[in-house]
Amino acid sequence: MDEAIRNRITASFARQGVMRLLSAQLTHIAPKLVEIEVPFHENLTQQHGLLHAGVISAALDAACSYAGYTVLDPDSALLTIEFKVNMMSPGRGERFLFRGDIVKPGSTIIVADGRGYSIGDGPAKLIASMTSTLMVIRGREDIRE
Amino acid sequence: MDEAIRNRITASFARQGVMRLLSAQLTHIAPKLVEIEVPFHENLTQQHGLLHAGVISAALDAACSYAGYTVLDPDSALLTIEFKVNMMSPGRGERFLFRGDIVKPGSTIIVADGRGYSIGDGPAKLIASMTSTLMVIRGREDIRE
Amino acid sequence: MDEAIRNRITASFARQGVMRLLSAQLTHIAPKLVEIEVPFHENLTQQHGLLHAGVISAALDAACSYAGYTVLDPDSALLTIEFKVNMMSPGRGERFLFRGDIVKPGSTIIVADGRGYSIGDGPAKLIASMTSTLMVIRGREDIRE
Amino acid sequence: MDEAIRNRITASFARQGVMRLLSAQLTHIAPKLVEIEVPFHENLTQQHGLLHAGVISAALDAACSYAGYTVLDPDSALLTIEFKVNMMSPGRGERFLFRGDIVKPGSTIIVADGRGYSIGDGPAKLIASMTSTLMVIRGREDIRE
Repeated sequence: MDEAIRNRITASFARQGVMRLLSAQLTHIAPKLVEIEVPFHENLTQQHGLLHAGVISAALDAACSYAGYTVLDPDSALLTIEFKVNMMSPGRGERFLFRGDIVKPGSTIIVADGRGYSIGDGPAKLIASMTSTLMVIRGREDIRE
Repeated sequence: MDEAIRNRITASFARQGVMRLLSAQLTHIAPKLVEIEVPFHENLTQQHGLLHAGVISAALDAACSYAGYTVLDPDSALLTIEFKVNMMSPGRGERFLFRGDIVKPGSTIIVADGRGYSIGDGPAKLIASMTSTLMVIRGREDIRE
Repeated sequence: MDEAIRNRITASFARQGVMRLLSAQLTHIAPKLVEIEVPFHENLTQQHGLLHAGVISAALDAACSYAGYTVLDPDSALLTIEFKVNMMSPGRGERFLFRGDIVKPGSTIIVADGRGYSIGDGPAKLIASMTSTLMVIRGREDIRE
Repeated sequence: MDEAIRNRITASFARQGVMRLLSAQLTHIAPKLVEIEVPFHENLTQQHGLLHAGVISAALDAACSYAGYTVLDPDSALLTIEFKVNMMSPGRGERFLFRGDIVKPGSTIIVADGRGYSIGDGPAKLIASMTSTLMVIRGREDIRE
């Protein structure tokens, strides 16, 4: 991994207010792949005490976007145009892992797949998936990093 | 609006840890329609200081789900199976409104549309849309309300 | 409606091999809105004899895209980046109407909503919805119209 | 592969009018995985002569659904609730391969991922992806196979 890219992602992640709010940690950066972990907390729940779909979306969106930054030239930035999330199993557990993976790098549009897992003592359990469409932005001062 | 349904939605909303974390307020409940408002806070941002797509998803998911509860019989509950979110304009503003609207009520599957707006002195600005698929759940103790 | 835009859409629709294959007709063009009709035929079915989700997607994609062309400058073209389709009721009927509607015009990204209806003697029945993300293309000879 | 399941899928595929219309062939059935191939034909194009997104959707929906049938008990059927398709590269080529893969089998909801490829002399090229949500149906005579 290029060190400049790693530093850019780490610094950008640190500026995301929401990631701090979720106590999210950036745990892995590799070419086309980023992982984020979030510990369970009752602040992150929906009405049945499960991890909220919005929290899952926030973490998967960040993992997918930063996976996109690993294939991006340094003068560009990324904006999320849209994503789709499937909730597959109830968000129960002590800790959650969110992985973003680049399926289609491109000069204008990047497509990423995300997977969310509940992790603990046993095998990781798939709780959600995302497909995310990212747009490459050049020359806009307001969204430069 | 049936008062029992309104009470059920209000109580369920109050149990969502994430809604407290976002300082979200349930501002309107009507048949097939629920509105939620969220004030801007730097804790809710992505790296460019805009409202995070995950926060938009959390609020739209809640608005769509509770719109679903307005057409649900009292013995059932709803789970979000999946949703898609389009980000249309940067999430800038002092306050945001999220509206969920039932497009297709059903005995097994309910489909809702959500819209997010930045609101302030001028006209509301559309910042995002959601289509959400909800499944009607009967007889499961763990997700009863 | 600008006559040049109407002519461009009509000519482009006529070049779509799939629209001929479906016996689809372009029945209405207005600013931000296009309608397409498809008569039922057993060639268009899935295994239970209902209208195939792929046919619904083809017609909604065309309706959404051409609705996009009504807000597009003449030097540009549109490509569908992605769409999501919800099937709401079984595709039964003698005739189907597909409407595309622009939700968010933009200089780079256009977002459209589509609705599909079964139409006949009684009231139209909603059978499907689409949200479609379109990208504005400039200066590419291979996808010029 | 259970021979009864294979026969059920083959017979069901043969009843799909649209698959005949596209000259689609069912080329591979394995547990959780189905492949369909479609030869290019000008009847299957959009206005730029590329494979139409609706054709891609039809073939991916069929591949995903029949992948679902490989994990389904014989008394049940599947209905597509919704899907999302990302178009990644222009649909150019002589022949296309569509693969459906089960990500999450379930007793009520099944989630499948689909990938579409342009195939020819060189390496296969990814042209599209799908995420599809399928609902398990029991006891409905009209959609029994």
